[in-house]
Amino acid sequence: MAAPSPGYSVTARISAPAGYNITSEIVSVAGNAGAQITALDVVESHHDRMVLDLTANTSSPEHADEVKAALETLAGVTVNHMSDRTFLMHLGGKLEVVPKLELRNRDDLSRAYTPGVARVSKAIAEDKSLARKLTVKRNTIAVVTDGSAVLGLGNIGPEGALPVMEGKAALFKQFANVDAWPVCLDTQDSDEIVKIVKALAPVYGGVNLEDIAAPRCFEIEARLREELDIPVFHDDQHGTAIVVLAALNNALRIVGKQIGEIKVAISGVGAAGNAIIQLLQASGVTHIVAAGRAGIVARDHEHTDPHRKWIAEHTNPENLTGSLADAVKGADVFIGVSAPDVLTEADVAAMADQAIVFALANPDPEIDPALAAKHAAVVATGRSDFPNQINNVLAFPGVFRGLLDAGVADVSNDMLVAAATAISANVSDDELNSSYIIPSVFDGDVARDVANAIVEVAQRAAQTS
Amino acid sequence: MAAPSPGYSVTARISAPAGYNITSEIVSVAGNAGAQITALDVVESHHDRMVLDLTANTSSPEHADEVKAALETLAGVTVNHMSDRTFLMHLGGKLEVVPKLELRNRDDLSRAYTPGVARVSKAIAEDKSLARKLTVKRNTIAVVTDGSAVLGLGNIGPEGALPVMEGKAALFKQFANVDAWPVCLDTQDSDEIVKIVKALAPVYGGVNLEDIAAPRCFEIEARLREELDIPVFHDDQHGTAIVVLAALNNALRIVGKQIGEIKVAISGVGAAGNAIIQLLQASGVTHIVAAGRAGIVARDHEHTDPHRKWIAEHTNPENLTGSLADAVKGADVFIGVSAPDVLTEADVAAMADQAIVFALANPDPEIDPALAAKHAAVVATGRSDFPNQINNVLAFPGVFRGLLDAGVADVSNDMLVAAATAISANVSDDELNSSYIIPSVFDGDVARDVANAIVEVAQRAAQTS
Repeated sequence: MAAPSPGYSVTARISAPAGYNITSEIVSVAGNAGAQITALDVVESHHDRMVLDLTANTSSPEHADEVKAALETLAGVTVNHMSDRTFLMHLGGKLEVVPKLELRNRDDLSRAYTPGVARVSKAIAEDKSLARKLTVKRNTIAVVTDGSAVLGLGNIGPEGALPVMEGKAALFKQFANVDAWPVCLDTQDSDEIVKIVKALAPVYGGVNLEDIAAPRCFEIEARLREELDIPVFHDDQHGTAIVVLAALNNALRIVGKQIGEIKVAISGVGAAGNAIIQLLQASGVTHIVAAGRAGIVARDHEHTDPHRKWIAEHTNPENLTGSLADAVKGADVFIGVSAPDVLTEADVAAMADQAIVFALANPDPEIDPALAAKHAAVVATGRSDFPNQINNVLAFPGVFRGLLDAGVADVSNDMLVAAATAISANVSDDELNSSYIIPSVFDGDVARDVANAIVEVAQRAAQTS
Repeated sequence: MAAPSPGYSVTARISAPAGYNITSEIVSVAGNAGAQITALDVVESHHDRMVLDLTANTSSPEHADEVKAALETLAGVTVNHMSDRTFLMHLGGKLEVVPKLELRNRDDLSRAYTPGVARVSKAIAEDKSLARKLTVKRNTIAVVTDGSAVLGLGNIGPEGALPVMEGKAALFKQFANVDAWPVCLDTQDSDEIVKIVKALAPVYGGVNLEDIAAPRCFEIEARLREELDIPVFHDDQHGTAIVVLAALNNALRIVGKQIGEIKVAISGVGAAGNAIIQLLQASGVTHIVAAGRAGIVARDHEHTDPHRKWIAEHTNPENLTGSLADAVKGADVFIGVSAPDVLTEADVAAMADQAIVFALANPDPEIDPALAAKHAAVVATGRSDFPNQINNVLAFPGVFRGLLDAGVADVSNDMLVAAATAISANVSDDELNSSYIIPSVFDGDVARDVANAIVEVAQRAAQTS
């Protein structure tokens, strides 16, 4: 059974006979059933009965049912209902659209709305660039998905994707004061998506593409970047690449290797894999071998997919062929953005000395991090319950804060590298060790530093152009 | 020169020599220049000089410049800068996207976002109706425009329309706690607009169409109503019609006429005119004559526009022809949703006794209300600076509150009539007089009453179906 997690936290409302031992009995029974108890509150107390709320992490909805059944084995105890705290948190949605001003009287109304607003509208109609000053465009981005590759759930459609996009928007606001609005599209046609996002663009200062399946995501991003005058950023690609590079920078500090000299093996040639390859190359990595489900991507294969073809032509300098194991042999760094359990302990043992293993498949990594740690010097995953969580939350809020503040139309590789460097730099020499190569997602400085780094690159680019 | 208005409110930062009389001189000079002073604040005071902020309503930007010049005729006085309070109010936009919950720690994050959110997403993917419970869809509507008929400004495009849609969204939240998001589309093609709104629909519980030019707005609304499972409401049509009917109900109480017996002349056969005709007919009005720019709409004309044709076939029982003046002659009610100064004093004099005149063209009505009042018993306009302001703000927030609360897929005529009745009922017999036929837009009860009325109709319809 998986470990209990706050993602499966429940609150049981329990009716029990009053008695000196009843609370300890409840805690004991629930604990024995595998629940991780986080709170026990007395709701009502009568001379013969009491009502309690037991809150606990469980490992699945089925496990929560088992905990309930265990509680009801106690004499006189009934569980009136179990509420799922995760579902409660989502009730009614997670976002509100709030006016920045209160309209208290006619004067307010006549300035914020008719007739006063007409002058503002007219000014913008005459000079569209004023929309960045006088409307939400200044601070607002669209979080756009077609629901085709949502978390590990796959193609669950736009409605199912909405809670994820709302969560993302909440993170944008909390970590970087960026107003983000979910755009969950009921179409998975690339032409349609491009057309729609272009039509929506007047309201937004940027576009964060999210959870769109490869290879469609590449085309959509490329076309939108070409055709829009606001920055477009596919977080599954570039957000991941930034945080991977940030973690790699620090892992290399630990093992004392230079980025220009390492050999990197990558498992996964989808959205994230592609972007990681490109960002590593922009950072000076010359020796990358990538493997997909069919093994190592090599030049002598036929590649109908242009992105696969690009990888074949721009990586794998020795033109290796074979399986992932062949790619990993002798490598300094393994980066997995693929599937559970594709990497064996023997594979890690066959890597170079002082190896670095990033097993980022979620929720189940390419290899159990404890196994990998037996042979590698630094191990990171995408999970919060192991050290070194490589989480995009470290990148995307600050990236868009910087893009909006700089008012730029495009995202450059220099910006992505600068963002990664800013994240790395948030781990000081004193803090750095093999279990702490990347700051916590709740580190309040990271988003600001990332934003500043991006603004700096934008200003430098503006000066030299 | 027009009267000073808060829509042209400015704040002048004035540097002046210290002196006992200086503030009164400033007030006097600004007042003589036609400024309506609303505040004078001392910002800094030194022994020889002082800095003051003078806030005043002016009648135009040019008038504000004249006020500035007048102030600078005073010895030693300089105006350092004039800030336009309307523009200041719009700076950075008028809306924020705010999380309803704070993510304080990893547990919060793992419930609101990954991994916990995956269960919520999965539940919705399996049963889409859960989106109304577990996402923003429950309380959020799209305010959709193509920028083709914005206020009196015409076809100013999506960027120019955005400040208006933001203002509208602010009103939705303030008056009815509806989360409304601006969707300003960079296309004016009906097919495209229908496609886009359908693709966006997963996120929204309703669609408010706004400032889309006729006749395109009719087709877009009709197709979206047909194809979407959330309510679609074109405010320029139905919002206006509701408030007109509400005002008419009360005006008829004053003049003692029955709605089934009145003759109504309508000037304007665009979006608002069409909807008013239909709602009046749904309320029992049988005798309506409508006039457009080409005169009375009559059956014996050739009508290529199907909406014009519908009017010709369903109004004008006596098949009158001629000009607006011919339509108005002998009418009990004039409703203008057209253009400035198309109605003359003589026209009003030729109406039936105890005539009712609603001259709603904005900002300049079909007839000066003072002139109309010489002959009519009740006069209303769309402006806030005359009695009886017929303003959609009385309708749309409550309408969508009711539609969302009822969870309905469609808007019915019964709902519109019930909304109008709820607004009328907010003017009690004690309050009712010819200068008070419609509640103030700041009457906090109206939106709630409108919402309740709509929910009631929806429940009744659900029971009888």
